[in-house]
Amino acid sequence: MTQDPLVIFTPSGKRGRFAVGTPVLTAARKLGVDLDSVCGGRGICSKCQITPSFGEFPKHGVRVSETALSDWNAVEQRYQDKRGLLAGRRLGCQATIQGDVVIDVPPESQVHKQVVRKEATAHDITMDPATRLYYVEVPEPDMHTPTGDFERLKKALQDQWGVGEIRADLTVLNRLQSTLRKGKWALTVALFRDHTTADERLLDIWPGYFDGRLYGLAIDLGSTTIAAHLCDLRNGTVIGSAGIMNPQIRFGEDLMSRVSYAMMNPGGDREMTAEVRSALNNLAASIAKDADVDPRQIMETVFVCNPVMHHLLLGIDPVELGQAPFALATSNSLSLGVGELGIGAINPTARAYILPCIAGHVGADAAAVALSQEPYNSDDLVLIIDVGTNAEILLGNKSQVLACSSPTGPAFEGAQISSGQRAAPGAIEHVTIDPVTKEPRFQVIGSDLWSDEPGFDDIIANTGITGICGSGIIEVIAEMRMAGLMDASGLIGSAEQTGSARSIPQGRTHAYLLHDGGANGGPQITVTQADIRAIQLAKSALYAGARLLMDEMGVDTVDRVVLAGAFGAHISAKHAMVLGMIPDVPLDRVTSAGNAAGTGARIALCNISERLKIEKTVHQITKIETAIEPRFQEHFIAATAIPHSSEVFSNLGKLVTLPDVSFNTAGGDKPGTKRRRRRR
Amino acid sequence: MTQDPLVIFTPSGKRGRFAVGTPVLTAARKLGVDLDSVCGGRGICSKCQITPSFGEFPKHGVRVSETALSDWNAVEQRYQDKRGLLAGRRLGCQATIQGDVVIDVPPESQVHKQVVRKEATAHDITMDPATRLYYVEVPEPDMHTPTGDFERLKKALQDQWGVGEIRADLTVLNRLQSTLRKGKWALTVALFRDHTTADERLLDIWPGYFDGRLYGLAIDLGSTTIAAHLCDLRNGTVIGSAGIMNPQIRFGEDLMSRVSYAMMNPGGDREMTAEVRSALNNLAASIAKDADVDPRQIMETVFVCNPVMHHLLLGIDPVELGQAPFALATSNSLSLGVGELGIGAINPTARAYILPCIAGHVGADAAAVALSQEPYNSDDLVLIIDVGTNAEILLGNKSQVLACSSPTGPAFEGAQISSGQRAAPGAIEHVTIDPVTKEPRFQVIGSDLWSDEPGFDDIIANTGITGICGSGIIEVIAEMRMAGLMDASGLIGSAEQTGSARSIPQGRTHAYLLHDGGANGGPQITVTQADIRAIQLAKSALYAGARLLMDEMGVDTVDRVVLAGAFGAHISAKHAMVLGMIPDVPLDRVTSAGNAAGTGARIALCNISERLKIEKTVHQITKIETAIEPRFQEHFIAATAIPHSSEVFSNLGKLVTLPDVSFNTAGGDKPGTKRRRRRR
Repeated sequence: MTQDPLVIFTPSGKRGRFAVGTPVLTAARKLGVDLDSVCGGRGICSKCQITPSFGEFPKHGVRVSETALSDWNAVEQRYQDKRGLLAGRRLGCQATIQGDVVIDVPPESQVHKQVVRKEATAHDITMDPATRLYYVEVPEPDMHTPTGDFERLKKALQDQWGVGEIRADLTVLNRLQSTLRKGKWALTVALFRDHTTADERLLDIWPGYFDGRLYGLAIDLGSTTIAAHLCDLRNGTVIGSAGIMNPQIRFGEDLMSRVSYAMMNPGGDREMTAEVRSALNNLAASIAKDADVDPRQIMETVFVCNPVMHHLLLGIDPVELGQAPFALATSNSLSLGVGELGIGAINPTARAYILPCIAGHVGADAAAVALSQEPYNSDDLVLIIDVGTNAEILLGNKSQVLACSSPTGPAFEGAQISSGQRAAPGAIEHVTIDPVTKEPRFQVIGSDLWSDEPGFDDIIANTGITGICGSGIIEVIAEMRMAGLMDASGLIGSAEQTGSARSIPQGRTHAYLLHDGGANGGPQITVTQADIRAIQLAKSALYAGARLLMDEMGVDTVDRVVLAGAFGAHISAKHAMVLGMIPDVPLDRVTSAGNAAGTGARIALCNISERLKIEKTVHQITKIETAIEPRFQEHFIAATAIPHSSEVFSNLGKLVTLPDVSFNTAGGDKPGTKRRRRRR
Repeated sequence: MTQDPLVIFTPSGKRGRFAVGTPVLTAARKLGVDLDSVCGGRGICSKCQITPSFGEFPKHGVRVSETALSDWNAVEQRYQDKRGLLAGRRLGCQATIQGDVVIDVPPESQVHKQVVRKEATAHDITMDPATRLYYVEVPEPDMHTPTGDFERLKKALQDQWGVGEIRADLTVLNRLQSTLRKGKWALTVALFRDHTTADERLLDIWPGYFDGRLYGLAIDLGSTTIAAHLCDLRNGTVIGSAGIMNPQIRFGEDLMSRVSYAMMNPGGDREMTAEVRSALNNLAASIAKDADVDPRQIMETVFVCNPVMHHLLLGIDPVELGQAPFALATSNSLSLGVGELGIGAINPTARAYILPCIAGHVGADAAAVALSQEPYNSDDLVLIIDVGTNAEILLGNKSQVLACSSPTGPAFEGAQISSGQRAAPGAIEHVTIDPVTKEPRFQVIGSDLWSDEPGFDDIIANTGITGICGSGIIEVIAEMRMAGLMDASGLIGSAEQTGSARSIPQGRTHAYLLHDGGANGGPQITVTQADIRAIQLAKSALYAGARLLMDEMGVDTVDRVVLAGAFGAHISAKHAMVLGMIPDVPLDRVTSAGNAAGTGARIALCNISERLKIEKTVHQITKIETAIEPRFQEHFIAATAIPHSSEVFSNLGKLVTLPDVSFNTAGGDKPGTKRRRRRR
């Protein structure tokens, strides 16, 4: 008795018997093996490469002879001559089954490949993008069955790819006839699958086989900065990243100032909407240019943002977000054409997906952080803080997740800081201060050397030393406290009090001279009393938010802390804890998640089932409103000291010494100190 | 044993028992009785008016006492004081059931009311519009369940009206919050139901209860004229009609000239698209203004048009329609936002529905004629001719329907005719010529008097006599033939040949002087030899198309003829038959259907299940292509004589005498005559 040959696919382990002569691609499809193809098995796209194995496979119980697949054919030879195939590779649509065989599907031939991300996050991305390319051959028109070209294309896609109902914008429809004829009745289409309906949408068309890539933009639209990652929609690779300042800053540095601007100025919301949309267009154009990508091949955008930016992006007046009960105009996710958002720098039919908001003050950015960090899957109690102009804070584990936002202001991003700047070459990012000499040493972005190491001056000659970025500010203030240059209330001592000539008078207060570039025509970089006050306000807001969630959950401690945000990625846990930004926790339980909101955007860009997941999950996150919670105010006031409590010692242990100095002076202000003393 | 009271609704006859105290509206809803309500039973909209009947009802087996309904209440009194109720009327949401009762639902309280149309068409319109108003009360936002306002509106519509998933454009979403607050958490929404999906689309919102109407435009977009009807979407009433010339005429009077223009001039298609869209905007604005309707309340448009106009409206280059196999870019119906069509003169979120095309030369206008005339439901064989610059011709009955289009040119619409003009006051529309004296008498649009009746001059003093409209041209030429002023070949005789001074020389040919307004400063209105030639070409094309369908069906005669088109409505069957426009058929079997395409557009506007019906039906209509059919050319050539055959006598009987004259002259041209003689 002769049986059909046995075909075993790895790594999936799927197996089945197929008649001699069955193409490997056909066998893979029948078994549901994840083997890619754009051209549908016509030997054009070469996406279906596989590697047959030969020899004895005791595990599978087969012996594979060298003749288990058909001979190398002309189509494969043509591809080999033109582009080259890796040794041992075959085209799955050309090689046919002749005997028992074991076939490996390499990662690059898998549609739903896993993308290993550099950042330490809770889970990797599996590719399942909304937009994909399909090569299709369309029957020519016939006077006797006079259907339209579009209807014949739909039928062909249904027959050849099994897709359902398709809609097309007029801008695509009006190019269909010329494209079909140019491609001699073959074309490649980009189809977008809406994750909430069965509909597919025709985004673009190319004559014949289009040997290009599709791209998407994952955009983290922050109050202060806008960051975008350009991703290859086939494999999730980030092929370009760029960040710009949010031009709305001129209407107000923090969100509430922008809401006020909208309230006070008729049309102010529309003005801000126009600004941010224009900035997004510029950003998209420049990121495409830098990555040498045709903007027309950018087919999708995913946005994460806080509720105020969410509304301003959509063209919705954010006024209701400025007053209780902080009602969102819409909280669910949105799937739109980019044209509706005034974005024209990429393919005009491209789609925009905006993650859902959790609540009036906890937006799509918090949802994105949840998506990338998955606190709802955590066994231990995790506190996730996404540091930005508005901090998104999540606390939870498998049983419950709470969320709030806290108005930290832009100080952590270098704004409102006298020598502050955004993280760019030339910015001081790491600082230590000798507790004895009170002399600083520092590193600037763009150099691995410390400022007191040989060769430092040469390395930074190009950029100069231009300011302090957000993480540098945290470090220098924490170091000032540890070096006894500043007391627990945040007051900077005078030269007499600190014994350092770097304590320089500035009006009625003092500043610490971190670097004097005057001799080389550079700036004098100081940390002023006002800088300290700004950071104190910001870190108190951050801490109070975290503390409020802990109160709500009825806990005094958390198991671990995750710092996120563009700046959270670079923050020193030790310094953050000295400063009192975060609750006390063993230092090794503080990790950085990088730009977790941006990562969430990328996850949603690469996989549409993740969109469904977060849409479901946001309804299970309990939102705590900081703005009307009296305890938030209490925590805020109690947290102004540096650090906020003596418990910090238990966790920082011997790493840190905090001198018991106090620089109370007649002229200096000293907010919070009195109250703190009372509480003690 | 006490039973719940019996409630019987008329005219539906639906009946059921309901607990004492049940509102009539509730009972109607439970029984599926068609009783309207916009406010959902809150006593605001007064759409649910009913008339209870009292006394003995042997037919229904009940006796209805005067106390069968609850007493007149304060809400009804308030409405009575404010607006007045007809005697005997109650509000269905206020009156509650107290005993056995018979309740009549008057037509104006029915949602799916039948609209009796003035025109004689195959079926009346039952109202089931895509867009309807709903009054809804939305729960206020709450910090503890922080859903968006839009999500709460959706939930409220689901709870209060049972509607499904709703989508909204950003332009509506961005007004939602202010509208909700202005209406104190009540608002009226216009929801559009897509007939192919379960989706509803939020088109507009008003604070509180909106006591207004929604309107739709049924637009017949012809090659030469654009006609629009403004309809009330609640009851189908046409509250305004307007027509304008299609400004594309400057690119070519017939369709193929416009296709050529697009082929010869890069960007020519876009130029024509812009022209027609601009004209549509002007038409929409003026029709709204004339009817005193807020353009924002115009929520829908339905378009019928031939394939070339279809493509030019959509912004698709019509070049493929100019060459075999005449492939349409898309043949199915389209549901779009008016913004996609560049129409901004009405509500920007309004929807456009474009009927499906049957084939490359048989468009949505033919589909609309089919929808209004229903040849597929006809027992006898009906020939439907929609006369226009391009004639749409349908032939069929219950077993089979064939369709073609024929390029008649714009002569029937008064273009290419020396004294031609569109049907407007001052245009000659009816003509008789005395066979003995050869003197004409005529009627002009705007007057019921004939030109030889007393008072005629006074009546037309305002407009004057300005030209001849399409139906007037048919009549005058047929009358010229009957009076012996013109021979069968179409040649006009000289004064000597005809014995009439009204035969005036004009170059190498002659013209017939229909009216000389010179004495009063008006124009000289003549019928020239060129006019005759233009009409001969047009009528031959028309006849050849009809004949081709008859050949295809294998019949020599049809049972009846329906003349449609703006001009078909006014055409005299007798004159059309003398001219040889239509196949021979007993005169009483020729009827006029008015603007059947426009009526089809109105039907689709008023009832979405009719949209489904025609979408299904077009696939069952067999299209015959005239452009490549040799028999079409043969029929065309054979049909130039007036009339085309002697059979006309059998049907016209004693009504008509056709003198056997022949004006063959050395200088005169005489196309067709030779060939006809050969055939005889």
